[in-house]
Amino acid sequence: MSIVVQKFGGSSVADAESVKRVAQRIVEYRQAGHEVVVVVSAMGDSTDDLIDLAQQVSPLPPARELDMLLTAGERISMAVLAMAIANLGFEAQSFTGSQAGVITDEQFGKARIIDVTPGRIRSALDDGNIAIVAGFQGVSQTAKNITTLGRGGSDTTAVALAAALGADVCEIYTDVDGVFTADPRIVSTARKIDEIGFEEMMEMAASGAKVLMLRCVEYARRYDVPVHVRSSFSRKQGTWVTDSPVPEAFLPARSAKAAESETESTMEQAIISGVAHDRSEAKVTIVGVPDIPGKAAEIFKTIAGQEIDIDMIVQNISTREPGKTDISFTLPKTDGSKAIEALDAAKAKIGFDQVRYDDQIGKLSVVGAGMRSHPGVTATLFEALSDAQVNIDMISTSEIRISVVTRADLLDDAVRAAHAAYGLDSDEDEAVVYGGTGR
Amino acid sequence: MSIVVQKFGGSSVADAESVKRVAQRIVEYRQAGHEVVVVVSAMGDSTDDLIDLAQQVSPLPPARELDMLLTAGERISMAVLAMAIANLGFEAQSFTGSQAGVITDEQFGKARIIDVTPGRIRSALDDGNIAIVAGFQGVSQTAKNITTLGRGGSDTTAVALAAALGADVCEIYTDVDGVFTADPRIVSTARKIDEIGFEEMMEMAASGAKVLMLRCVEYARRYDVPVHVRSSFSRKQGTWVTDSPVPEAFLPARSAKAAESETESTMEQAIISGVAHDRSEAKVTIVGVPDIPGKAAEIFKTIAGQEIDIDMIVQNISTREPGKTDISFTLPKTDGSKAIEALDAAKAKIGFDQVRYDDQIGKLSVVGAGMRSHPGVTATLFEALSDAQVNIDMISTSEIRISVVTRADLLDDAVRAAHAAYGLDSDEDEAVVYGGTGR
Repeated sequence: MSIVVQKFGGSSVADAESVKRVAQRIVEYRQAGHEVVVVVSAMGDSTDDLIDLAQQVSPLPPARELDMLLTAGERISMAVLAMAIANLGFEAQSFTGSQAGVITDEQFGKARIIDVTPGRIRSALDDGNIAIVAGFQGVSQTAKNITTLGRGGSDTTAVALAAALGADVCEIYTDVDGVFTADPRIVSTARKIDEIGFEEMMEMAASGAKVLMLRCVEYARRYDVPVHVRSSFSRKQGTWVTDSPVPEAFLPARSAKAAESETESTMEQAIISGVAHDRSEAKVTIVGVPDIPGKAAEIFKTIAGQEIDIDMIVQNISTREPGKTDISFTLPKTDGSKAIEALDAAKAKIGFDQVRYDDQIGKLSVVGAGMRSHPGVTATLFEALSDAQVNIDMISTSEIRISVVTRADLLDDAVRAAHAAYGLDSDEDEAVVYGGTGR
Repeated sequence: MSIVVQKFGGSSVADAESVKRVAQRIVEYRQAGHEVVVVVSAMGDSTDDLIDLAQQVSPLPPARELDMLLTAGERISMAVLAMAIANLGFEAQSFTGSQAGVITDEQFGKARIIDVTPGRIRSALDDGNIAIVAGFQGVSQTAKNITTLGRGGSDTTAVALAAALGADVCEIYTDVDGVFTADPRIVSTARKIDEIGFEEMMEMAASGAKVLMLRCVEYARRYDVPVHVRSSFSRKQGTWVTDSPVPEAFLPARSAKAAESETESTMEQAIISGVAHDRSEAKVTIVGVPDIPGKAAEIFKTIAGQEIDIDMIVQNISTREPGKTDISFTLPKTDGSKAIEALDAAKAKIGFDQVRYDDQIGKLSVVGAGMRSHPGVTATLFEALSDAQVNIDMISTSEIRISVVTRADLLDDAVRAAHAAYGLDSDEDEAVVYGGTGR
């Protein structure tokens, strides 16, 4: 008997009708002989409604109480889903994050899972139940306070439970068909990716692909949990995120062999898995930093002191003034004012000339494990962007990723150009094969 | 430092504005130097909304899941109330029933409190917090499932916490000014009762006075917790339910002495505390029961087997057939069809002729501790009802209560007549003093 963990997001359980449809789908897995654990988010926009309510009584609600409030959302959806399943004649029991053994630290609003002790879930399964678990929430280890995991928390709950239960697969149901080679709203010819490795998926997630959050993929990789991202509105296979072969039991029965060979050939061809983009960042440029050791450290210590995560960093010799240098970095727009304030306060001590802030930027990333062994990938990108009249502001690379910062209003053009240049458009038969030198 | 437990019902926290007003009121007690524990119900009609949602996915939702669902209501109100208090500059922490140590049995939907272990609440108070506790909910002792306490559960939570914490007073805030000598919607001259003993209040509650539920008063009596029922919409003193003197610290400062002497004189005069009524019952008459030992037992065993609580019972010799008797009893209307079905099924075995069902009845009860030592009380009632042309169907009495069943459409007239006959109308100066013989 295999264990399946299924996660349904808020849009999949937006109202009573959706809940019933989801219940039907869950029950089919139970009928097929699987043990089923379901992780569910709050219904539709109910979390936003709760935040609105909080704002009405307090402009800055205490984090502990905000978490207590928000966890009411999943409490509702999980109980209603359990009822809908019971109404189909199957046993179902719902469990809060705390009851399911999701132990976290006590960073309210963005708690990290530090342990999962799913004893009650295991018992519920042993008793023949379908177990429904509240996503997004847990309980702090020592003070036993209710916590929430922050954005993408329900996906992480699902993967963490799958890991703790030794599940065969973690299915993430969402409102799109899977992970695409680019955002289909920008690139109409984008294709669904059938299979992608953990590392590539992590780079995609970190680069702005919104289907899965980075922390969820990190968790899946650490515990080697095969993740299947798919639509709750269709029966189609979605995107498998795994470094191992897809478990055959979970491939469509009639074409398991065909699908396998398909996947294999796809794997061989895919040098570039996809093109991700991100509009959530801003660029800070610190002009006229004394070019002496320790200055960069002082700057980034100032930023780190505000608990701000920075992304790309570029340093150039200042063209205007000898002995000085300019340092640029990107950071989440939401942290922009906090960073500027902190830097302004440290200006005299660090001794730079000025800070510039630019939130009209976009980031494009090309991700592909094939990049490691195929030179020429970078050149193709630069050529494509140049042909599309897109100027590059900043560049950063990893083993399997190239990211560039462009003007925000040119980002869509850049994404389309890159997607086409790597032969990812769905009307093309083959992905581009690289030769030549260098990256 | 005294401990005050305050309970606010759903109508007192119906929206953000109400929550802020309640927060202000709570904070005043903290400022006055009290330790404050607040028990709160779900906001406004939110419990009904959740029940509607459940009905949309399942006509008969599993009780465990319904309780899980409903407890989301208080989770929201308690967190929002804690936020509103924090916004006034005071420390507040919210706790679920489970966190507050409200341990129950596992009768979902109508769980009984079997223990209260308020360790976390005590710690929160020690840390200077105002503790906000979800009413109406607890956790089952062995299986650790979430339970709800059923109707009036939040009042019971408040009294139980007050008992466990050794509170000086339990304030029940509601949408009326207190307990009245009769329902003011029926008797315009009804007066607020300033003080009433536990036993009388229990009889009032059992007889249909809806301000406090019977189980809550029972709990208060068992642990001798002074209860103050008052309006959340005014600052007026409400009704004190206690057998001991009202704690002086909680009487209005400027007129503490005056209030005391007032209360004393009221206590002396009050032979009848109030007139309660109840429209929720129906009458079952079993016609032609063989008048041999054991038949009544068979009938009531049949009813008890359906877990139906019956109220009044009357047995008469059948006027039509010798050797047979008629038995009538009252029960909640909601249990009517269940009772009739069970009796019909047992008809042959018990050997009665037929069952009649009448749900157009009303019950009037006159309650007063003074009844014990003052004869003539019953005669006054019967005379008053007779003058008002109200016929009496059934009669039952306790030490401090007389109840009669009338036609439903005459109940209001009956209540007004009784209220006037005992001198309870607010324009009269003195309550009636009884002499003579009998009851």
